[in-house]
Amino acid sequence: MKLYDYPQAPNPRRINIFLAEKGIDVERVSIDLTKGEQLEPAYRAKNPACDVPMLELDDGTCISQIRAICRYFEEIHPQPPMLGSTPTEKALCEMWDHLAFMNGLLAVAEVFRNTAKGFANRAQVGPHAYPQSAELAERGRARVANFFKDFDQHLASHEYVAGNFYSVADITTLAACDFAKWIKAEIPAECTNLKAWYDRMAARPAVQANS
Amino acid sequence: MKLYDYPQAPNPRRINIFLAEKGIDVERVSIDLTKGEQLEPAYRAKNPACDVPMLELDDGTCISQIRAICRYFEEIHPQPPMLGSTPTEKALCEMWDHLAFMNGLLAVAEVFRNTAKGFANRAQVGPHAYPQSAELAERGRARVANFFKDFDQHLASHEYVAGNFYSVADITTLAACDFAKWIKAEIPAECTNLKAWYDRMAARPAVQANS
Repeated sequence: MKLYDYPQAPNPRRINIFLAEKGIDVERVSIDLTKGEQLEPAYRAKNPACDVPMLELDDGTCISQIRAICRYFEEIHPQPPMLGSTPTEKALCEMWDHLAFMNGLLAVAEVFRNTAKGFANRAQVGPHAYPQSAELAERGRARVANFFKDFDQHLASHEYVAGNFYSVADITTLAACDFAKWIKAEIPAECTNLKAWYDRMAARPAVQANS
Repeated sequence: MKLYDYPQAPNPRRINIFLAEKGIDVERVSIDLTKGEQLEPAYRAKNPACDVPMLELDDGTCISQIRAICRYFEEIHPQPPMLGSTPTEKALCEMWDHLAFMNGLLAVAEVFRNTAKGFANRAQVGPHAYPQSAELAERGRARVANFFKDFDQHLASHEYVAGNFYSVADITTLAACDFAKWIKAEIPAECTNLKAWYDRMAARPAVQANS
C-alpha cells in the first residue's frame, strides 16, 4: 500500500504521528500541496476529495479522510490501541476526536484558509473553489479562543483528551494546538491544564519524530 | 441507559434511524431544542457540547457526538453491522460518512443556522454565541449544490454511499438530503443516480419509521 503524504501540513501529520505510535512503516508518495498537486487529474481520479493524506491499498482501493485511514490501520494492526479498547473507551475516543476536529482544527482552518494569500478562492478543502470570507475568519478566531478554554477545563479532570487513556483524540488536539501557531494563536497562559497536557504529549517520541 | 433526543431535528434523526436498523430500543429523554433546553445547566453539566443526541450510560458516562454514539451501539450490538464488516469496509464507511457530514449536513447547516431567525447569535452548534454570517450562508448554498453533484456522480457506480454495503454513511447522506429541504434545496432533477438511491433509502422501514 501507499500513503499519499505531505508531512508539513497539519492533517498528514496526524496520520504520521498515529503510525509512529503504532510502529507502522508504509511507503510514502509526496503530494506537494504548495504546488497544487492534490488537484491534478491523476490524483483526483484516485481521490475526488482532493485532499491529503490518502491511502491506496494494493487492490487499488483509495481511502481518504483521516478517521478512515486511522480505522483501517487500527483494524489491521490493533496494538497499541489508538481508538480505545472497550465500547465506552471507543465511544469517548470518537466523541473527543470529533470535538477536537470540529472546535479546534476546523476553527483554526477557518482562520487560516480565509486569510492566507495563497488560499484565495481556496477557502474550503476539496476540489471546489470558494472565495475567502472575512466574517468566517473572524468567527474562527473566536472559536479558537473558546477551544483553548473548553479543552483546558476538560483537562483539569482528565489525564488525556478522551479520559484516562492515550488515543487519537490527543493527536488531533495536539495538531490543532500546533496548527493554531500558523494563525499566531498560542495556548493562553491561564490555560495551565491544557499547557501541561500539551507538554506531556509533545515529549512523546512519536510526536518528536513528526515535529 | 438514556438517549437524550429531539427526533424532529436532523442529527437526532440519524441516531433514531441507526437504532431502528439494529432493532435497538432505548429509553428516551426529550430535550426541546426550540425551548433551548440543551443550554440549561443540568443538561450542560452532562454534555458541555450542549447538543443532541447524547447517550447517558448507567454508570453516568455521557457520550455526545453521533459517530461516538453509533460506535457504542455497534460495539455492544454488532448485528446488523452499520459501520462495515471488513477493515476496508470499515474504512470506506468512515470516509463516506465523514464526507457526507462535512460536505452535506454541515453545508446545509451553514445555510440554515446563518439565515434562520431563531438562530440569531446561535450560528454554530454548542454553548457559545456566534453571530450569523451572510457570507457563510452564501458559501453553504454553493456547497450544497456541489454536494448533490458530487454524490450523484459517486452513486453512478456504487449501490450504496460507502460502496456495495448499506451503512451509516447512507443514513448521514439521507439526513443531509432531507435537511436540505429546510433551506428549500432539493436533489436536482439531473442528479438521477442520487435520486434513485434516495428513493431506495427512503423506502426502508427504519427510515419510514423516522420520517
